[in-house]
Amino acid sequence: MRRRLRLGMVGGGQGAFIGAVHRIAARLDDRYELVAGAFSSDAARARASAAELHVAPDRAYATWQEMAAQESARPDGVEVVAIVTPNHLHAGPAIAFLEAGIHVICDKPLCHTMEAAEAVARAAAASSARLALTHNYTGYPLVRQARAMVAQGALGKVRVVQVEYAQDWLTEALEETGQKQAAWRTDPARSGAAGSVGDIGTHAFNLAEFVTGLRVESLAAQLTAFVPGRRLDDNAQMLLRFAGGAQGMLWCSQVAPGNENALRLRIFGEAGGLEWAQEQPNLLLHTPFGEPPRMIRRGGAGASAEAAQATRIPSGHPEGYLEAFAQIYRDFADQIAAAPAGQPGVARSAPVPGIEDGLRGMRFIAAAVASSRLGATWVPLG
Amino acid sequence: MRRRLRLGMVGGGQGAFIGAVHRIAARLDDRYELVAGAFSSDAARARASAAELHVAPDRAYATWQEMAAQESARPDGVEVVAIVTPNHLHAGPAIAFLEAGIHVICDKPLCHTMEAAEAVARAAAASSARLALTHNYTGYPLVRQARAMVAQGALGKVRVVQVEYAQDWLTEALEETGQKQAAWRTDPARSGAAGSVGDIGTHAFNLAEFVTGLRVESLAAQLTAFVPGRRLDDNAQMLLRFAGGAQGMLWCSQVAPGNENALRLRIFGEAGGLEWAQEQPNLLLHTPFGEPPRMIRRGGAGASAEAAQATRIPSGHPEGYLEAFAQIYRDFADQIAAAPAGQPGVARSAPVPGIEDGLRGMRFIAAAVASSRLGATWVPLG
Amino acid sequence: MRRRLRLGMVGGGQGAFIGAVHRIAARLDDRYELVAGAFSSDAARARASAAELHVAPDRAYATWQEMAAQESARPDGVEVVAIVTPNHLHAGPAIAFLEAGIHVICDKPLCHTMEAAEAVARAAAASSARLALTHNYTGYPLVRQARAMVAQGALGKVRVVQVEYAQDWLTEALEETGQKQAAWRTDPARSGAAGSVGDIGTHAFNLAEFVTGLRVESLAAQLTAFVPGRRLDDNAQMLLRFAGGAQGMLWCSQVAPGNENALRLRIFGEAGGLEWAQEQPNLLLHTPFGEPPRMIRRGGAGASAEAAQATRIPSGHPEGYLEAFAQIYRDFADQIAAAPAGQPGVARSAPVPGIEDGLRGMRFIAAAVASSRLGATWVPLG
Amino acid sequence: MRRRLRLGMVGGGQGAFIGAVHRIAARLDDRYELVAGAFSSDAARARASAAELHVAPDRAYATWQEMAAQESARPDGVEVVAIVTPNHLHAGPAIAFLEAGIHVICDKPLCHTMEAAEAVARAAAASSARLALTHNYTGYPLVRQARAMVAQGALGKVRVVQVEYAQDWLTEALEETGQKQAAWRTDPARSGAAGSVGDIGTHAFNLAEFVTGLRVESLAAQLTAFVPGRRLDDNAQMLLRFAGGAQGMLWCSQVAPGNENALRLRIFGEAGGLEWAQEQPNLLLHTPFGEPPRMIRRGGAGASAEAAQATRIPSGHPEGYLEAFAQIYRDFADQIAAAPAGQPGVARSAPVPGIEDGLRGMRFIAAAVASSRLGATWVPLG
Repeated sequence: MRRRLRLGMVGGGQGAFIGAVHRIAARLDDRYELVAGAFSSDAARARASAAELHVAPDRAYATWQEMAAQESARPDGVEVVAIVTPNHLHAGPAIAFLEAGIHVICDKPLCHTMEAAEAVARAAAASSARLALTHNYTGYPLVRQARAMVAQGALGKVRVVQVEYAQDWLTEALEETGQKQAAWRTDPARSGAAGSVGDIGTHAFNLAEFVTGLRVESLAAQLTAFVPGRRLDDNAQMLLRFAGGAQGMLWCSQVAPGNENALRLRIFGEAGGLEWAQEQPNLLLHTPFGEPPRMIRRGGAGASAEAAQATRIPSGHPEGYLEAFAQIYRDFADQIAAAPAGQPGVARSAPVPGIEDGLRGMRFIAAAVASSRLGATWVPLG
Repeated sequence: MRRRLRLGMVGGGQGAFIGAVHRIAARLDDRYELVAGAFSSDAARARASAAELHVAPDRAYATWQEMAAQESARPDGVEVVAIVTPNHLHAGPAIAFLEAGIHVICDKPLCHTMEAAEAVARAAAASSARLALTHNYTGYPLVRQARAMVAQGALGKVRVVQVEYAQDWLTEALEETGQKQAAWRTDPARSGAAGSVGDIGTHAFNLAEFVTGLRVESLAAQLTAFVPGRRLDDNAQMLLRFAGGAQGMLWCSQVAPGNENALRLRIFGEAGGLEWAQEQPNLLLHTPFGEPPRMIRRGGAGASAEAAQATRIPSGHPEGYLEAFAQIYRDFADQIAAAPAGQPGVARSAPVPGIEDGLRGMRFIAAAVASSRLGATWVPLG
Repeated sequence: MRRRLRLGMVGGGQGAFIGAVHRIAARLDDRYELVAGAFSSDAARARASAAELHVAPDRAYATWQEMAAQESARPDGVEVVAIVTPNHLHAGPAIAFLEAGIHVICDKPLCHTMEAAEAVARAAAASSARLALTHNYTGYPLVRQARAMVAQGALGKVRVVQVEYAQDWLTEALEETGQKQAAWRTDPARSGAAGSVGDIGTHAFNLAEFVTGLRVESLAAQLTAFVPGRRLDDNAQMLLRFAGGAQGMLWCSQVAPGNENALRLRIFGEAGGLEWAQEQPNLLLHTPFGEPPRMIRRGGAGASAEAAQATRIPSGHPEGYLEAFAQIYRDFADQIAAAPAGQPGVARSAPVPGIEDGLRGMRFIAAAVASSRLGATWVPLG
Repeated sequence: MRRRLRLGMVGGGQGAFIGAVHRIAARLDDRYELVAGAFSSDAARARASAAELHVAPDRAYATWQEMAAQESARPDGVEVVAIVTPNHLHAGPAIAFLEAGIHVICDKPLCHTMEAAEAVARAAAASSARLALTHNYTGYPLVRQARAMVAQGALGKVRVVQVEYAQDWLTEALEETGQKQAAWRTDPARSGAAGSVGDIGTHAFNLAEFVTGLRVESLAAQLTAFVPGRRLDDNAQMLLRFAGGAQGMLWCSQVAPGNENALRLRIFGEAGGLEWAQEQPNLLLHTPFGEPPRMIRRGGAGASAEAAQATRIPSGHPEGYLEAFAQIYRDFADQIAAAPAGQPGVARSAPVPGIEDGLRGMRFIAAAVASSRLGATWVPLG
């Protein structure tokens, strides 16, 4: 019997979006039990949120500092903490909990500045605890399969990588209406130097590197804030050069009407291609050169062991975003169970995005911003 | 704060499919806590399952009879029980728990015979407790919206209803390999008089009635067992006549290669049409006559309050089968909270399939089987 | 060098729809030259049409009788005549031209009554000339390929055949506005005993038999005229039984909002399935059981010789309705070239629908109408 | 009655691809009659081709020089000539026929060098005859409609333009097998300085400018020849800056397995978006911000006058590549009829790509090649 891990949460009080997602993800496979939280900087909201979430009043903390101090002192203290605050509030609690030997699940991007990211990395390196970063799209079964297929040579050498992530919710100046999500995501103080690039471009970048196994070496990026008055980019277009010679493009936009969450990856190699789109995640199109395209469906014929490991229900019963998100939680629980903190060498059965992915994402943001400021010239990726 | 309901389960031990689905559904919205179970008729499997599911050993029962007796005697006994056994084992526990005043969530179809179904109906009528039937496809947000749109006249008077549910997993004689799911579903003793018609035809039938708000008055059905040696139908085609003059067709098949879980409903009225398919559940196609078709997406522009009520995450993040299933659980919890057992007159904010739907489904099965035996002549629906 | 055949036309004057289609079809592959016509019963319109079509004034006839008499007497008279009038005006000219030894291309359905159809059949049997019926959907490359795949056993024994043809243009009482196409198609005197069944149901029926190579033995049909005041069916739903045990359904409708010309065929056998839809005719979905579905594209990998024979341009450049229609013309020209009239035994390289298909279509209409009048009971197909 | 224009052809003999397409396009609407040709530099092939095409032996010329001389001297000489040779053989005949006062329809790109293009432009400016360039994708009805919608402000100010054209036929070194199409397209001497960029990138570029009405001001391009030994690019990725501030990307590839002719344009503005894909050309997706996406279908509800002008048959009967190609021919015939050569000021009812588009395309090629040689830095578009 697998014991449930004791989970705490920083952020995610009433009115938040991603906190609720993390909680469902934690609950879905019954591997975590939420027992503590610093849900909000607003004390009343923090208390009310805790009550609603069945968290005992004495473990509903006013601040993450207090939570870190008290929980690490309890024999039944939290074993894992989920950080679901805006970007500028990731590093502080992440470092504190890592230093306390408590595992961290951090929302992406890792931080709002490169400096903060490196501080987290140092804390992680020094800690017996682990850090998982919720690049949740890597939790989709067919994304896992695509990665395995590329690694096994199904496409031959990769030549072309086209990735995009389009949304439309910031087509107008939503941040001026007081909408909370829009407000912090367009605010440099809370979001960092990038808008769409940090919010969704990092997902696209991560997905491309995750699936191809290739590293972006340099990029040329044009970042634009199309909406008058907006302080951070709401659209970005980039050329990418990968180690080994593959060439790519990345487009992310939050001002593309008709697009909701249109993350889409296409990879083409000497021997074939792959295509996957987040809004139809149960389908992977495989196009071996010279043969009819094949529709690989999650759980169906042609689905691999990597996909099966991340699947809960039979083919034809669509799984979605929450299941993929939950996969990160489940795999992290497996990692923790298989490899107690402090034994990082233990083999992992499934890939969980971690500190390295977080640093890559931060370098990507930095390079994109720098390139754009230089007129979209080529900039290496640190 | 909403208290979690104490949940028990009959069936669903190790190796079962639908039991795990029910458990995730119960857990997803944190409205239930699994505390007891009679998970298997095999005692060792029952115990092992309980341990795996964090159920205390003293509440892991060998039989549902024992569970009903003991749980109804405990002050902290289960408030709701989920029945996830094969069809022939629905009626017994359903009646027992209803008689004990414990709410029942029963997998569909309601039973394996009309007589058993009527006995359950009598028990439900006499009980202070409620029964929910997991016609889970009614839990999809856009199915709810489609129902509301029809009711509000968006299509005008309905003329044509085309519904189908195609699978392929029984294309060959899987039951002869010992596969558990195939074995009981093709066995008249455990499944009842129908195969594909009971297993998936009932879902199609329920969906058509649920969304249109119309009742099938009569049908002509040809049921076929295409696989040599198979004892129950694996394919059925039907003409339908609805009260009020609409005409329909229903096709269900488990021998249609390439189809996984292809439940699809199309409705056409004087003023427009609607189309929804389970494998792409986040899209509802609305075709007002004389205008370009509109793609209504869950959570997006054009999504209604009915859809929003059944939605957890923003548009573009796909939801799927588990969320829809969970919706039945969530709405049932709301019903129980809003209208304590014994006060059936309290308004329901969302439709939860219940005993009436169960009886309709059983009548549908009976009519289809009777029609087919008479050479696919017309038979009224009781 | 292939000589162009001298072509005449009956009907198809200014304002007609299908006449223009026939002319483009004749012209596309440069195998015909339009040299004569009785384009309209209105003399002025007939003359004007001829002038517009580059037909010499002395070969613009007032009636088809006159045209048959004079053209058969000319040494350079027409070799082939296309009949593109409403249904009730097919038999007369068809018989006259066949008796004159002139090949006939007749629009479908063959006639408006069974008696007329049989008279045409007798004339065809007695004539040295041939008759082609423009069941134009059989001209699509991937329909040809589907037929070949079934014949070659790619699906194993066929079990299930689902065919449908949905339109929406008669959702309202268009015939009351004076619209010419609607007027004759809803008029029993000009269309025959069936409306949608004759107009589009025959196409669906023909396609199902053409591709499967199976014959419908009996059917149960409910025909409905949903629009108040309409004299012929605008919607029909049918159960089908094929020789050899396959079971099918056919739905045709002209009152299904959102559907333009949605002819779609699905076939399922012991070993796999096929799906083709007229509105995306360059794709054939092949679903071998137990393998990922394969997207066969016209001209692409997996396309067969039968498809290639009916293809003009490389894959990815979409072909459509006109090319498929032209294929009937091209194949008929090949037949005439390869097998001079009077030598019917010569092998055909491609299937051209002819008198037998015409008679099958008429029997289908008769059986559907008879079944519906008897309350949708089973009726054999003559 | 519209007289047929007398048409000649340069190139397009037996074995060629695009010549046959031009001939069908010319024939489809019956506005041209092929009467002369210099079909091949191989005399025997030229004669055989002429015979096959019903061209009189005395008008089957050995060279285009001879053809220009003799046809311009005949009273019944060709009025229009189609040039369908490889790129390096466009300028010579184009200039000769323009100087002879004969209209020219030239395949794209206009030439193989900028110098040659400018020479053609001078000839066109000095001539009483017109030049049309077969940027055939502009002939699709819904491309015309998209252009009109943008011009009428349906999207508001355009912000983002994403265009791509992917193929896979050069994934391997097809040119080494002697395949004729591959051979000249990968040969700098015959194709010019660019491979995929000239062959298909120009189409993508033209489409983007045609529909948006915006001009690309500068670009940064990385051109790659992925196949070992290939002398011209087979893949290119570009960032685009448009006058007025719109930002774009262009991807063209001939090494993207699974793609046949995947030309796709997406445009996003302040108020909405549009999406069109060549392989499903009968659909235009319109996404007004804040409303459900609308599927505009050729000929259906929401189709505009611009689309109708380029449509032959009713909605639901798919039109394709040949019809769009024919549209250029038809519109050019209308132009010639409405505005005799020498009266260029006469209004045009439909846009026909001409010399300006040809020059734009050549500048695009030059800029892309230059940018790539400079390491994908920004280069203005002449």
